[in-house]
Amino acid sequence: MEHTGLDRYAPIGVFDSGVGGLTVAREIMRQIPNEHIVYFGDTARVPYGSKSKETVTKYSEQIVRFLQTQHVKAIVVACNTASACALDTIEKDIDIPIIGVVKPGAKVAVSVTQNGKIGVIGTAATIDSHIYSDYIQQLDPSMQSIGKACPLFCPLVEEGLWEDPVTDEIASRYLSELIDVGIDTLILGCTHYPLIRKAIGRIVGEGVTLVNPAYETALELRALLNSNGLLNDRKPELGANQYQFFVSDAAEKFKTFANSIIKYGILTAKTVHIEEY
Amino acid sequence: MEHTGLDRYAPIGVFDSGVGGLTVAREIMRQIPNEHIVYFGDTARVPYGSKSKETVTKYSEQIVRFLQTQHVKAIVVACNTASACALDTIEKDIDIPIIGVVKPGAKVAVSVTQNGKIGVIGTAATIDSHIYSDYIQQLDPSMQSIGKACPLFCPLVEEGLWEDPVTDEIASRYLSELIDVGIDTLILGCTHYPLIRKAIGRIVGEGVTLVNPAYETALELRALLNSNGLLNDRKPELGANQYQFFVSDAAEKFKTFANSIIKYGILTAKTVHIEEY
Repeated sequence: MEHTGLDRYAPIGVFDSGVGGLTVAREIMRQIPNEHIVYFGDTARVPYGSKSKETVTKYSEQIVRFLQTQHVKAIVVACNTASACALDTIEKDIDIPIIGVVKPGAKVAVSVTQNGKIGVIGTAATIDSHIYSDYIQQLDPSMQSIGKACPLFCPLVEEGLWEDPVTDEIASRYLSELIDVGIDTLILGCTHYPLIRKAIGRIVGEGVTLVNPAYETALELRALLNSNGLLNDRKPELGANQYQFFVSDAAEKFKTFANSIIKYGILTAKTVHIEEY
Repeated sequence: MEHTGLDRYAPIGVFDSGVGGLTVAREIMRQIPNEHIVYFGDTARVPYGSKSKETVTKYSEQIVRFLQTQHVKAIVVACNTASACALDTIEKDIDIPIIGVVKPGAKVAVSVTQNGKIGVIGTAATIDSHIYSDYIQQLDPSMQSIGKACPLFCPLVEEGLWEDPVTDEIASRYLSELIDVGIDTLILGCTHYPLIRKAIGRIVGEGVTLVNPAYETALELRALLNSNGLLNDRKPELGANQYQFFVSDAAEKFKTFANSIIKYGILTAKTVHIEEY
């Protein structure tokens, strides 16, 4: 779809159920440093991963309506669960470019696997949606993909146990069946998981390539903006408010966690009554 | 406050952020078996424990408005976080009897401690509210209470790791500072925790009395109904729909978990759009 009449100097909207999408925002900051970003984290209703498709879709639609009030030129669904459950529906509602994290992640996994056995880990909602396996099959019907929900990974990350024997123990339980099948590629299908990629790597071993969809999503966003003539060609001015953060609850706590992920110094996060959108 | 004009045959409204409050509902079923119950679990917005007082209060007020459409004669806030954050505000809004789980739990702890050192474990929101320690101080200023937030306990319970070395390891970390202080009484200040009371008991040892506020809350509810002439004196008829369950999301998943807690056979759970109340 061609998108005309949009402002290339407008910000990109990025949203997630909470803080995890910051790992995607961080990649966009690194790879397309001229872009302005409006980030929304739904901290009042986090987590999405244990909720139904209908509820995740309703919440995502409210966030998209909020982001549109911020005049964004494009939207990144920086949450695997929302990408899995809601992207199809949202795409029909809006007329600006939008991408999720699932397709970029699936694409790179298909391109790097040697033996055609791809593991996918994510929330229960993401895995139950079968979206990764469906998309991998579409890309290459000879591929075999095996999904595994890992509900404790997000709480462990949020508790700060990134390097901890308990996280290794839980990872070892979740991942054993993927190892038994002989996967050589593992998609980190939740934006929290890159934060424990070392623990995951220790368990699956060096023979398994870990795919972080955030990196590929930022690349794909860049290409999408470029093909629509929407890449920002101006360096942000000194003192410009390049990155803005909004949350639905507990802005202070968000700021603390966000500053542990993003090294740009997040000074403020504003609270939005998201259910009014 | 005297409550007149209420129907003693009307149901009791019981609510929680999700499934944990079923441990309180179970105690009410055991101790006051004539009563009808309307249970609401806010499964779309669970958990409350990591959220702000304002958000928890707003959500609780919506639930109370829903329960009033069900013509309940009394309300039990079967969630420590909601009791800690929202009960004061809700009490002012309604004219039917309402109780939470915090005061009954604090009372029994004060009555059983020998050395005056009481530990309290709960969600971050409950512990940060200091409501247990404030109420314990009110009851007896000589008491010393020590709170500790245990954010991983709920995810561990919901993942089914009730008897598991990982739960013991996490419990041992959370509880060590309470043990060091020499508590002889520990309030299980979150409705999920009675489900891992064995693990908690192993860590703190036999010298520490575990207080489950659910039991005392049911006792206090009975007294409150009785003093208001609201105790149901009729046995429920065969086939009567004595217990009704409502949730804001994922009714099927709720049913499965609920049936592992309550042995009465929960046949249906209806979904409510709670943010419309």
